[in-house]
Amino acid sequence: MKIAILGATGAVGQQMMKCLIEQEIPVTTLKLLASAKSAGKKYSFQGTEIYVEEAKEDSFEGMDIVLGAVESDMSKKFAPFIQKAGAVFIDNSSAFRLDEKVPLVVPEINGEDVKYHHGIIANPNCSTIIALMSIYAVDKLSKITDMIASTYQAVSGAGNNGIYELEEQIQTLLEEKPITPKVFSHQIAYNCIPKIGNTLENGFTTEEMKMQDEGRKILHNPNLKISCTCIRVPVMRSHSISLSFRTEKKLSIEEVINAIQNSKGVRLVELPMPLTTGDQDIVEVGRIRQDEVMDGYALWCCGDQIRKGAATNAVQIIKYLF
Amino acid sequence: MKIAILGATGAVGQQMMKCLIEQEIPVTTLKLLASAKSAGKKYSFQGTEIYVEEAKEDSFEGMDIVLGAVESDMSKKFAPFIQKAGAVFIDNSSAFRLDEKVPLVVPEINGEDVKYHHGIIANPNCSTIIALMSIYAVDKLSKITDMIASTYQAVSGAGNNGIYELEEQIQTLLEEKPITPKVFSHQIAYNCIPKIGNTLENGFTTEEMKMQDEGRKILHNPNLKISCTCIRVPVMRSHSISLSFRTEKKLSIEEVINAIQNSKGVRLVELPMPLTTGDQDIVEVGRIRQDEVMDGYALWCCGDQIRKGAATNAVQIIKYLF
Repeated sequence: MKIAILGATGAVGQQMMKCLIEQEIPVTTLKLLASAKSAGKKYSFQGTEIYVEEAKEDSFEGMDIVLGAVESDMSKKFAPFIQKAGAVFIDNSSAFRLDEKVPLVVPEINGEDVKYHHGIIANPNCSTIIALMSIYAVDKLSKITDMIASTYQAVSGAGNNGIYELEEQIQTLLEEKPITPKVFSHQIAYNCIPKIGNTLENGFTTEEMKMQDEGRKILHNPNLKISCTCIRVPVMRSHSISLSFRTEKKLSIEEVINAIQNSKGVRLVELPMPLTTGDQDIVEVGRIRQDEVMDGYALWCCGDQIRKGAATNAVQIIKYLF
Repeated sequence: MKIAILGATGAVGQQMMKCLIEQEIPVTTLKLLASAKSAGKKYSFQGTEIYVEEAKEDSFEGMDIVLGAVESDMSKKFAPFIQKAGAVFIDNSSAFRLDEKVPLVVPEINGEDVKYHHGIIANPNCSTIIALMSIYAVDKLSKITDMIASTYQAVSGAGNNGIYELEEQIQTLLEEKPITPKVFSHQIAYNCIPKIGNTLENGFTTEEMKMQDEGRKILHNPNLKISCTCIRVPVMRSHSISLSFRTEKKLSIEEVINAIQNSKGVRLVELPMPLTTGDQDIVEVGRIRQDEVMDGYALWCCGDQIRKGAATNAVQIIKYLF
């Protein structure tokens, strides 16, 4: 299988390289594409050294799959050329997620949706993947109608630069020097920033609306209502989510727990934490309990943002394709 | 006014000393009481050096007010002797909060409740104070019936040792040495711990039930339902809360915003953060918006846990007493 990674030098692109090996994708050619300034960088893949090339309009010829790990504008720019080259574009950006012709896929939940693709398959938002992984098995017992989510999002959501910024700020504070935020709007060390993305007219942010918009598409439920509050916290790479949800018909708490316990890709634990979910593929779920206010259930879940929230999910989609 | 601080050497006790000066309480005598191992420590108060004395049964004679900043067991142990000495005990522990004879007071919300005291007045739980401060003015427009809260609680909630532990762990990780948690059950640096207090049969923790139990008493609404998820985050001393709530009658979002904007002790800002609320008395509220799932409103609030969440509130109660 001939695979290109567009945005190969970033946190998600680098993780995609590792996931291709871990998930035993039979890669015959791997092309690493990035911006001009990263061209010439060298990475090792299964014993071979691969040089990063500048992504250009004709970079995709002969490829079977292009994994996208770039921002929306770059995805939009290159998508026509990827399609023209006849490759399938599995895109991690938000560019095509809500496009009707583009399947938006979490393999464990709606893997069969890959079938209707027209050359592009979208990888959902990271918090959306992790939240839905925790409750998709409950949704199969009885449709989830409503959710209230508060996220605790890692700095890796802003890529490698997000991770560097937290590390740098911690160091700067130890040296008692002033902090100048660059990646995040405010100091993130020892802080929580209650805004990710841009604020919309309804007061929610673009990041917050993704969980409802994408959740509806992934769960095939256009009436699903999700109210989300997205918060950046000083954690490296695992997102956590406090979730309350209601189902169409009442379930016992035992039914809810059993369904989650038997979910593929999920581990039921006493205390899911960023510490125990970092750099691995499983989403941890715990603190499952009846929520009287919601007339439903509450839980707490964690998952690695770079892996299941991005790279792992994209590489799993390749498996569902073939 | 003759005042004793029981637990004077802890984070809250030390803050109480500062608040007595800031709030211009006319202190004629200040007695600093703590455990035997802290006896002999020396603190400066308004130009005078005060030695810490070991708290004993007869330590409270002649005092008008005893501010309690110790754990519940110690509060319970000393309360009878404080009452016998004729002093009013303003207690920050959870020992007496739900006792019918004990007012549970946030001065801005139910200051008038101090009147029915029988020698003890309780200071509410820190997250409860901060959450209720953000919405008490809305409750006056129309009773709040339901709330869903997810907290982002600072390490100061575990006292000075919580702060030291986070600082130490950050240093230990920089030195690439192994971490041994002492105060918290797990590493808190770069982590979120989804359990504060002990787990009850209903799956909630003792800390999580406080918001409902204490909220009902403070807002004089025994039917108030609050579903809470309490999370410890690597932040020094400000608690943050993501809140969704519903009122008895519908209010416009403008009415909600106006009420909060005009609340005493509250500042409406675009982005409330631990960084902007640390070591000051005001609770910041922002991100106020309509919540369709809740059929109500959502917001984000932050406040200093040691100050308004504990010491400031206790010292404000003195003012309401006289």
